Amino acid sequence: MIHIESDLGEENHMGKSRLEAFSDGVIAIIITIMVLELKVPQGDQLSHISATFPVFLSYVMSFIYVGIYWNNHHHLFHAVGRVNGAILWSNLHLLFWLSIVPFVTAWMGENYHSAWPAALYGFVLMMSGTAYYILTRALIAFHGMDSKIARAVGADFKGKISVLIYLIAIALAFVHTWISIALYVTVAMIWVVPDRRIERVLGD
Amino acid sequence: MIHIESDLGEENHMGKSRLEAFSDGVIAIIITIMVLELKVPQGDQLSHISATFPVFLSYVMSFIYVGIYWNNHHHLFHAVGRVNGAILWSNLHLLFWLSIVPFVTAWMGENYHSAWPAALYGFVLMMSGTAYYILTRALIAFHGMDSKIARAVGADFKGKISVLIYLIAIALAFVHTWISIALYVTVAMIWVVPDRRIERVLGD
Amino acid sequence: MIHIESDLGEENHMGKSRLEAFSDGVIAIIITIMVLELKVPQGDQLSHISATFPVFLSYVMSFIYVGIYWNNHHHLFHAVGRVNGAILWSNLHLLFWLSIVPFVTAWMGENYHSAWPAALYGFVLMMSGTAYYILTRALIAFHGMDSKIARAVGADFKGKISVLIYLIAIALAFVHTWISIALYVTVAMIWVVPDRRIERVLGD
Amino acid sequence: MIHIESDLGEENHMGKSRLEAFSDGVIAIIITIMVLELKVPQGDQLSHISATFPVFLSYVMSFIYVGIYWNNHHHLFHAVGRVNGAILWSNLHLLFWLSIVPFVTAWMGENYHSAWPAALYGFVLMMSGTAYYILTRALIAFHGMDSKIARAVGADFKGKISVLIYLIAIALAFVHTWISIALYVTVAMIWVVPDRRIERVLGD
Repeated sequence: MIHIESDLGEENHMGKSRLEAFSDGVIAIIITIMVLELKVPQGDQLSHISATFPVFLSYVMSFIYVGIYWNNHHHLFHAVGRVNGAILWSNLHLLFWLSIVPFVTAWMGENYHSAWPAALYGFVLMMSGTAYYILTRALIAFHGMDSKIARAVGADFKGKISVLIYLIAIALAFVHTWISIALYVTVAMIWVVPDRRIERVLGD
Repeated sequence: MIHIESDLGEENHMGKSRLEAFSDGVIAIIITIMVLELKVPQGDQLSHISATFPVFLSYVMSFIYVGIYWNNHHHLFHAVGRVNGAILWSNLHLLFWLSIVPFVTAWMGENYHSAWPAALYGFVLMMSGTAYYILTRALIAFHGMDSKIARAVGADFKGKISVLIYLIAIALAFVHTWISIALYVTVAMIWVVPDRRIERVLGD
Repeated sequence: MIHIESDLGEENHMGKSRLEAFSDGVIAIIITIMVLELKVPQGDQLSHISATFPVFLSYVMSFIYVGIYWNNHHHLFHAVGRVNGAILWSNLHLLFWLSIVPFVTAWMGENYHSAWPAALYGFVLMMSGTAYYILTRALIAFHGMDSKIARAVGADFKGKISVLIYLIAIALAFVHTWISIALYVTVAMIWVVPDRRIERVLGD
Repeated sequence: MIHIESDLGEENHMGKSRLEAFSDGVIAIIITIMVLELKVPQGDQLSHISATFPVFLSYVMSFIYVGIYWNNHHHLFHAVGRVNGAILWSNLHLLFWLSIVPFVTAWMGENYHSAWPAALYGFVLMMSGTAYYILTRALIAFHGMDSKIARAVGADFKGKISVLIYLIAIALAFVHTWISIALYVTVAMIWVVPDRRIERVLGD
């Protein structure tokens, strides 16, 4: 390996295009690779395929979650000009937690009556949300508190309520897994349904 | 996660380039990942490889189908300027159904004499066709009825006849799977063979 | 699905950027997915890892072959302006045969003393070469015999000699597989080693 | 295949955009595919998931390593204008060794008490580092000793110390694997932590 002068230093500002292209690539692979966890059934009857239905549903939910992150990532970097080393690593940190999603999706799908898989699924979602938060802080630290990106991120009501719901869902997985799953669906709906009406209902 | 002001609102118009790049990525992965379903035979004889031939043929057909979608997606967004939240989600919905194609391809390839795998294959094709239709409606709703994209989509004869043939093929899978498969090949040919001559024959 | 007016017609000329991006994506996935065929050994000794060495060597050769195709594809489209439906499908046809390479690589690597795997490997290389030839014909038919691309493709000495060597290698696989493998290595060297000196030696 | 006149000759200078896009694609696939090596546990208890923890930790380390290469590749080509055949092949050579990382990561993760897996992991890291060095030499040979890229690469203290540490780690794997792993973590930290302070401590 070779040393590029001050490659993580604040004064070396890069364009965002390769970061966007790399993130798009990783997220596209994550969202598609989950389908590989859908094992082709050994028989040829409806009962064989319906046995894969819980895994299928957990795949649908994770597809929507990864889709939400791609949409939000898309919007977030729309407001961004240049990037530095801290932003590159915060972004890789987010991609790391997202890349764990297919693993926990498969584990929960195959064991949807069990507490630990449902709790771990929520933990990975919570870490992804936290990684996204750290990424926005790195972006604001670099662009300044009165930048376009700082105004766009704002008070971040949805991000904070999501992490709170994840925490509750992880705890309640040990009561009943369906409570956790219902809470994960709720958070997904908060993000998919168009913003302002939901925000008015929940936010004041 | 962080809230980007009105991130799904109609007034937040984004460029199409990242949507195209992300869709290209997902479709490239789907089309390539299908080959992973081709299990390497355990023996070294011609008979061992010829046993994988039905899976191979179902892979060829799905490759052509996904290729058709990529071509059409390419053409569709050629006529598109900007995108909104409804278009992003309609596009993810299409990618979702396409990402199921490798799964049903493998199931049908391994059970090509059985009704349910052939019917489910047709169902996923039909849902993909429907998702494509919804995407065009979202595009027309955003760009207006007299936009370039609305004129390009037009009466959509091929789209409607395809969904009709899929429905017939799903029903006839329970009579004989080869009828269904012949109908899937027919739909693929309608889309691959250059347009106008076929359209003249079928369309009036 | 929706009908885009004359979507495969000659008068609908598209840019080449999405075709390049899609091809890059598919080739990147093919070249990387081959490593998945390298099964992690069950033991922890040198003997366990050295047992995977034949598969590893077949992976190295296929990596170089796919790398050659990416390089040549890169150069070919460098001389290209716009594309039509025939070019899109010729390109998908090439990507189809390349996507089979990981499958035959794994089969040959696991059975390198057997004739059929070595012959099938050569067959897929030959079909890839033929698909590349068809793609160049589609490009020349669209851009004209005195276009930049027609001059760049030229007499195509290397392409023709490659297909001839593949044919000989397929036949000789039934005499001894190492003869075939030596011929595949020879073709790869013809393409990797800088052009003009080799061409002078072989071409006149 | 077709012969493009002097396709590897020095006089045929190409743009770097497709090389960057292809490299981004391959690296994105490598970093994501590693998660496939994380086998979903057969049971639903905490003990089942904690048994995968060593594999998980080796995955984290490899994720950081591949992330470092992506960052450095990003910076390296930032200073590059055009590319030639030697650069294309040097880059493919680097991508080859990086594509082996998921394989050795899984082997080491499953056998973290054994010498050979830890040594082979270090060998692949060392070959990746060497391939990166060859790539920088190809870039400098093409752009000249007083080019921007030559100045950016400089004396390459970090690259040389990394290869030295890898060599020591490979040897010490046969004493105790944890020594090797601690050394791999050390090299990763040298690259992740912002440059100048570390360099001041280690470099003079």
